[in-house]
Amino acid sequence: MFRTHTCGELRLNHINETVILSGWVQRIRKMGGMTFVDLRDRFGITQLVFNQDKNAVLFDQANRIGREWVIQCKGVVAERSNKNQHLDTGDIEIIAIELIILNESKIPPFTIEDDTDGGDDLRMEYRYIDLRRNAVRRNLELRHLIALEVRKYLHEFQFLEVETPVLIKSTPEGARDFVVPSRMNPGEFYALPQSPQLYKQLLMIAGFDRYFQIVKCFRDEDLRADRQPEFTQIDCEMSFVEQDDVLNIFEGMMKHLFKEIHHMEMSPFPRITYADAMRLYGSDKPDLRFGMSFVELKELVSGHQFAVFDAADYVAGICASECSTFTRKQLDELTEFVKRPQIGAKGLVYIKFEADGSFKSSIDKFYSSEDLKGIANAMNAKPGDLMLVLAGETKKTQKALSELRLEMGNRLGLRKKNDYAPLWVVDFPLFEWDDETQRFYAMHHAFTSPKPEDISLLKSDPGKVRANAYDMVINGVELGGGSIRIHNSELQHKIFQIMGFSEEEAQFKFGFLMDAFKFGAPPHGGLAFGLDRIVSLFAGLDSIRDCIAFPKNNSGRDIMSGAPSPIDMNQLKELNLKIEVPEE
Amino acid sequence: MFRTHTCGELRLNHINETVILSGWVQRIRKMGGMTFVDLRDRFGITQLVFNQDKNAVLFDQANRIGREWVIQCKGVVAERSNKNQHLDTGDIEIIAIELIILNESKIPPFTIEDDTDGGDDLRMEYRYIDLRRNAVRRNLELRHLIALEVRKYLHEFQFLEVETPVLIKSTPEGARDFVVPSRMNPGEFYALPQSPQLYKQLLMIAGFDRYFQIVKCFRDEDLRADRQPEFTQIDCEMSFVEQDDVLNIFEGMMKHLFKEIHHMEMSPFPRITYADAMRLYGSDKPDLRFGMSFVELKELVSGHQFAVFDAADYVAGICASECSTFTRKQLDELTEFVKRPQIGAKGLVYIKFEADGSFKSSIDKFYSSEDLKGIANAMNAKPGDLMLVLAGETKKTQKALSELRLEMGNRLGLRKKNDYAPLWVVDFPLFEWDDETQRFYAMHHAFTSPKPEDISLLKSDPGKVRANAYDMVINGVELGGGSIRIHNSELQHKIFQIMGFSEEEAQFKFGFLMDAFKFGAPPHGGLAFGLDRIVSLFAGLDSIRDCIAFPKNNSGRDIMSGAPSPIDMNQLKELNLKIEVPEE
Repeated sequence: MFRTHTCGELRLNHINETVILSGWVQRIRKMGGMTFVDLRDRFGITQLVFNQDKNAVLFDQANRIGREWVIQCKGVVAERSNKNQHLDTGDIEIIAIELIILNESKIPPFTIEDDTDGGDDLRMEYRYIDLRRNAVRRNLELRHLIALEVRKYLHEFQFLEVETPVLIKSTPEGARDFVVPSRMNPGEFYALPQSPQLYKQLLMIAGFDRYFQIVKCFRDEDLRADRQPEFTQIDCEMSFVEQDDVLNIFEGMMKHLFKEIHHMEMSPFPRITYADAMRLYGSDKPDLRFGMSFVELKELVSGHQFAVFDAADYVAGICASECSTFTRKQLDELTEFVKRPQIGAKGLVYIKFEADGSFKSSIDKFYSSEDLKGIANAMNAKPGDLMLVLAGETKKTQKALSELRLEMGNRLGLRKKNDYAPLWVVDFPLFEWDDETQRFYAMHHAFTSPKPEDISLLKSDPGKVRANAYDMVINGVELGGGSIRIHNSELQHKIFQIMGFSEEEAQFKFGFLMDAFKFGAPPHGGLAFGLDRIVSLFAGLDSIRDCIAFPKNNSGRDIMSGAPSPIDMNQLKELNLKIEVPEE
Repeated sequence: MFRTHTCGELRLNHINETVILSGWVQRIRKMGGMTFVDLRDRFGITQLVFNQDKNAVLFDQANRIGREWVIQCKGVVAERSNKNQHLDTGDIEIIAIELIILNESKIPPFTIEDDTDGGDDLRMEYRYIDLRRNAVRRNLELRHLIALEVRKYLHEFQFLEVETPVLIKSTPEGARDFVVPSRMNPGEFYALPQSPQLYKQLLMIAGFDRYFQIVKCFRDEDLRADRQPEFTQIDCEMSFVEQDDVLNIFEGMMKHLFKEIHHMEMSPFPRITYADAMRLYGSDKPDLRFGMSFVELKELVSGHQFAVFDAADYVAGICASECSTFTRKQLDELTEFVKRPQIGAKGLVYIKFEADGSFKSSIDKFYSSEDLKGIANAMNAKPGDLMLVLAGETKKTQKALSELRLEMGNRLGLRKKNDYAPLWVVDFPLFEWDDETQRFYAMHHAFTSPKPEDISLLKSDPGKVRANAYDMVINGVELGGGSIRIHNSELQHKIFQIMGFSEEEAQFKFGFLMDAFKFGAPPHGGLAFGLDRIVSLFAGLDSIRDCIAFPKNNSGRDIMSGAPSPIDMNQLKELNLKIEVPEE
């Protein structure tokens, strides 16, 4: 037997018991004739004591072991004279009577501490050592727990978890599909799913009623900090539902997670239309942990000979409470911030509503104190507040003001990791117009249902049609989204027409799903959540990478294993493939 | 609202309630002025009644609908005069007051009944319709439940479910790996995992202590009836354990499943050595639902001028209770059976121990009644029994006799679907000798630990070394297996030597795992179960195909979607690949 207890288990009530522990050597402290070893496993740390006077041979043996060696120690539990309040096992220690070295260890390339001295690349190369750190392991424990609670909740509501295939049909739309050559079918390929969308709709047609799956999805695209070539979705679909049914079930799921994981009772999630989200926050994933919603000022500020405002399609501002004391330097930094190319504003107008009731602004030349007072009123500003105003083309300016709002939230410490502000964004537009290809694209996907009351606009003004589509957003992160699907084939064809596909093209693109729709498709809808994002949110991480056991880097490479890598010529030949890398 | 209740929910206590149901039209019966519609959803079937006298318009509408149309019906719950005991809802019916056609359906290509008229290919092509059948859907409900109970059980025992990567490093050993070209890394490939073996061992080195994952694995090989190119494993690993710890935890898991799924309390699983399994049943996955274990007869039967027995390395028989009445025809069939090329016996010897105590056998010429009596005693035969004896080269004959034993079990109805006879087969040989390449191969895998007491044989007689490897077998099916791994690098190198790899080759083949072992690997071991096989067993299926929502056929093809398929030239070019199918 390697152990009678884990390293996190022993307490005062175990005193005088003879126990066996196994684990890794976290730390060794030598103090004269005493050697103290902190023994670590997943469950905690326990102090072992080796006393030269009691057993000189054992003491010598203990002095030869090193950091991260794996040892097994038999000993007697004793009360510590010097208790450690920071450890669950801090009331006791083990007086060693036997030591077995199970395995030695080379000196690890970085320290196994919450604040390690290892850089990102080193940590990724030795991920199996990095995973020994509490800070990383806890994220994966949390991930396990979240997945389990999601499953329990959905099972309670009669969802069935159904595994859909990983080796699926490649579609001509799937430009970002990973493909897999088939040895048995020369020249043919499977694709890895970007999502199980078609299969979950088939399961609804199959009468499964409520489906979910926690499932790996794949996308072969350039990676950003929060993207991975393989990622995990909580994929869900329901039959005989309207939008509210879906929202209620999954709001319930998220509340269940908050309750089980963080012991928080959440209030009902606000539901905000896409139009309002854009109007008030310039974003379809607003961070509602703080206010500073937009106030549109175009009408109020026009006609004052200030060309910037007069020429702008859109003028709007945010009001930062108690920030009239911002210095010149702080305001310059904010101006620099909005002028960065990725934000792209031309400049920033500020209006300080001083504590004494006076105004100081960058547009004093054009606006009287009375004018500024009017703006302050419109913005609900109080003495001591700072107003920040941007102007320009509507969409671009909304986006820039949204970024400025988030930056202010950061600067003012209003985006606290332990605050959670969830909401639903609903009524997304059905289509997005693409200037380049001069056609409409489905904003969510081609099967998304328009709002019934907007169907009449499909012909006259497709860009205005709203969809039964929704996103769940928490703290400015889109955690999931979905839609009610079209189950009526006549309506589906109308939508395809607007998107410019012929029936043949639709058949070619969506083939077997289009066939399936002919055999009695029920009304249905669903959504998918990003599990990686949910775990990151609950763990308070900035990147999804540390909630993934073995993540890949920005080039899609696993530094530890060296994947991807060249393969054998014979294997290529068996697959009927030849590599042709074009010369640079 | 599409429904107030499901089609499986209404009972006598709902009488007089106005309800709304939605579902598929299972059946329409027209009886004069009454039309009865059986409405089906995942939860059951409810009878709707349309009465011409009460509402002629509604009645006409109901008469226009067809099989598998999706409808929504409002009505009042009424007690049936003619109750249907076969339906959970058979006490009530719905007197319709409103009917909405949600979707029409083409006539389905086969009937949606437990015994459908659809052949296998048709069912696979229209899998979304096949899945509407109770018989198929129930298998997937069972699969959902089994996976959930496995997770609950393992969570209870502090296992963490950790997702390991799907896009992994291709290894030179991975001849049956599916590979995935990387667009971002021209000429390089990922592989899809045949199992997460390396990753789970890394997680042990990372201190995760107890890991599991229900995970898709992939193998690009010729498929048999019970193989799929993608299959699902319950993959598990534990640290600081000996073989018994692993066996106890996972025997507990299987007992938990029997209890939760079939409400059966299982006795402790017998543990049989590989050597005994081969000796008694000629198989490392014996079906213990019935006896008929082998009795070795070589010594007893030698020296009677019967050349077949005298020349054979091995003579053994089984005794079938109360089968002395087998006819000539039945015995001929059994002889034909063992002579089939896939079984390969030269012939079959029978000895009938007649009810009157006399003997009748195919070897009367060589053996006296007294001799036969001796054989009968050795085989513990009673009057009325039939003894069947095979002779030849040991391994081949054991295998043939094993097949004969199973055939007899089938003929005698001893292999009942609802009987479950689990066991562990333990102490597998560490190595298998391959005549062709003249080297030893690891029987389980290269990291499997030899039994400590056999380590001394590694040099002198590697073929005799037993491993700490084990399989769980139920009803003749290997549901899972695993081993205690080697954590000592010296021992590992010895094993590699016996298998004929140099240290460089080992490093090349197992690269990052070999590195990881240098940083403090704990003693560890684990196993993997085939989820598909477990579900098949619990569902009483002959093939794993019907417990998979969207299976592939024997050519790895999904008939429904048409995967795999050719891909676009542009996509190939982006992947730096060219197809070269050799001419036949």
